[in-house]
Amino acid sequence: MLTNVERLHELMAQAELDAIIATSPENVTYTSGFWAMSQWIRRGPQAYVLWPAPSRGDSCLIVSSSALDLVADQNPWVRNIRRYEHFVVDRAPDTILNNVDQRQAMLHQLPDDADPLNALCTAIRGNGLDRARIAVDEFGLLPGYFEALQARLSACTLVRGFDLLRRCRALKTGEEIARLRRAAEIAENSIAAALRVARAGASEIDLARAFHEQTVREGGFPVLGCIGFGPRSAMVNVQPSGRKLQSNDVIRFDVGGRYQHYRADIARIAVLGEPSKKLSTYYHALHTGVRCAYDVVRPGAAASDIFLAVVNAVRSDGLPHYQRSHVGHGIGLDGYDVPALGPSSKDIVEEGMVLCVETPYYELGLWGLQVEDMLVVRHDGVESLMSTDGGLIAVTE
Amino acid sequence: MLTNVERLHELMAQAELDAIIATSPENVTYTSGFWAMSQWIRRGPQAYVLWPAPSRGDSCLIVSSSALDLVADQNPWVRNIRRYEHFVVDRAPDTILNNVDQRQAMLHQLPDDADPLNALCTAIRGNGLDRARIAVDEFGLLPGYFEALQARLSACTLVRGFDLLRRCRALKTGEEIARLRRAAEIAENSIAAALRVARAGASEIDLARAFHEQTVREGGFPVLGCIGFGPRSAMVNVQPSGRKLQSNDVIRFDVGGRYQHYRADIARIAVLGEPSKKLSTYYHALHTGVRCAYDVVRPGAAASDIFLAVVNAVRSDGLPHYQRSHVGHGIGLDGYDVPALGPSSKDIVEEGMVLCVETPYYELGLWGLQVEDMLVVRHDGVESLMSTDGGLIAVTE
Repeated sequence: MLTNVERLHELMAQAELDAIIATSPENVTYTSGFWAMSQWIRRGPQAYVLWPAPSRGDSCLIVSSSALDLVADQNPWVRNIRRYEHFVVDRAPDTILNNVDQRQAMLHQLPDDADPLNALCTAIRGNGLDRARIAVDEFGLLPGYFEALQARLSACTLVRGFDLLRRCRALKTGEEIARLRRAAEIAENSIAAALRVARAGASEIDLARAFHEQTVREGGFPVLGCIGFGPRSAMVNVQPSGRKLQSNDVIRFDVGGRYQHYRADIARIAVLGEPSKKLSTYYHALHTGVRCAYDVVRPGAAASDIFLAVVNAVRSDGLPHYQRSHVGHGIGLDGYDVPALGPSSKDIVEEGMVLCVETPYYELGLWGLQVEDMLVVRHDGVESLMSTDGGLIAVTE
Repeated sequence: MLTNVERLHELMAQAELDAIIATSPENVTYTSGFWAMSQWIRRGPQAYVLWPAPSRGDSCLIVSSSALDLVADQNPWVRNIRRYEHFVVDRAPDTILNNVDQRQAMLHQLPDDADPLNALCTAIRGNGLDRARIAVDEFGLLPGYFEALQARLSACTLVRGFDLLRRCRALKTGEEIARLRRAAEIAENSIAAALRVARAGASEIDLARAFHEQTVREGGFPVLGCIGFGPRSAMVNVQPSGRKLQSNDVIRFDVGGRYQHYRADIARIAVLGEPSKKLSTYYHALHTGVRCAYDVVRPGAAASDIFLAVVNAVRSDGLPHYQRSHVGHGIGLDGYDVPALGPSSKDIVEEGMVLCVETPYYELGLWGLQVEDMLVVRHDGVESLMSTDGGLIAVTE
């Protein structure tokens, strides 16, 4: 299961909620396991999960009728489904339907609730929650829908719910960690595939294609592919261009796709030929910063303390002027989950968080360097999700 | 240029606007040419384009400081840039910067406007628009930002702007059509690549990987990949599974990635071995429906009339019980642009629109069939963006 049910109920109790409603793609998938394609690939399509507090009713998934096939196929654990909008699917006469098609046929027989808010209100009232205190994830609603929902449920107290769900998502379940582990592995394998085509004259685009092809080949889906050579590696979000690889170029990868909807985000640096003294020194310091995180990240550690420890480790190992706004973040269904490893972060690290720890350094005109690892916070420290150690990679000319 | 400037100014004049503000990824890219990565791959990061009416000031692009590298690299035509948030980039001493890095260095010297709304208000006031009537694209703003902006600009009249920009995007410029043409071509080539691995025993996932790999190889980015065999082809949004291809299976493709941010969305049907009589008859009727669109789509045609003509063509050619909620839609930066080819649509077809015309048919327990072509509305009719004619594809066993 993706949902950390214990944590969710704890946060809901703290906020004195009778129910919470997920509306954004990440939160809908998180609370139901259901992946509503249209909601993920466009902005606007509506899918919701109503999640009542314990003993306040049953969870309900609300989807467009045109997405009922995905409900039937994915068969999420949420048993109550409400649908909205007219959609026609015929049925072959005299044909025995398989399980998935039987489910789909049954789902199409559910009443049509006409529009998403109507479906949601019906689910809320059906659970006797029409005078309840309900948090509504404000991120996935169409503009004006939060107010429209409040108007329809005039006896309910609606509060914003996105932040609570985001905080809940910070502590990963075993299933989530398994997906993140595989996402990280695919990203590492895709870097290796890209480096196999790295030779003088290959372009950034050549490496990016090799990278994304490997991601697809391993069952991942491309998302992030910042790959830059030489001075272009100093661009934070560098998008692959026709720039050709030359001797002594830095190759910076800040990359990661999705695996079963979960993100990877890692960074590695390679050099074609021999690294300069300055590069080796700086890179060693940045790598020391990430290795320091392996020592200081543990349950109970303050994110701001981790930030200071990592930045100081970089500074004292050979990059004394190192400055950063953050040295990492959580990762999961979203690329930036809780916690934020920044100087003014109030987050406290907890067991079960999955973190990206990173120490990027950008020097315009020269290169950008970056080490970024994904790791899991365990009760006694951390477990790396990486199979490579983040050292500088030498590509022979 | 991506923006249809003439059309935008016409729509702004009709709505008596002094300015319009783009906030959602599609509209920011559309009005500036600028692709703000973080805004496209996550939900929440803010980037805006302020577009004043003619003689009411200069356009302004508002981005996070961490995205200034992309501004420098893409060098969009909008000359005024405002940035927000602290972000550190060092500069190599004694190094001559190339043009891109010089631009980036200059951009980092711009004042830090602290947060996106402050940056936007500064741009609005800088153009003397602090008592203006301004449409604000409500789709890309963080929840509450529309109201916060109105509070900060108390002498302005703010109205919603998403719909106006969406209507503007309906009439494509030459550059947009060129990108859509290439996106369609990549999708067709990717179907061909998938069919090259289609043999008894190959899985839906095998075909999907071949499909997306080809998309990546040709410079596209995977988005939509509904590929289903046999009864699974009757699932509207079918997600590739381990189901293996068998004799006489239908293979349904409803697919398309992005090319330079522009979407493809096409459908083709193949059969392993010999199609049944019913399949051939039904498919012919569906194909006749799409071919009918080539005859009836032209500037001035009502979308609802096109819908009727297409549905009637399918019905009279061998599928008398055919029912649909729509037979197509516009396509561009978004997968569903204006117009909607549905029975109650008020849209009128205009020259320069790019349409997906489709006649899907789903029969649970048997198969789903679908023809979907992309075409451009020209002054005297339509131009197809397809190189294949949409006939049933026979895969030899």
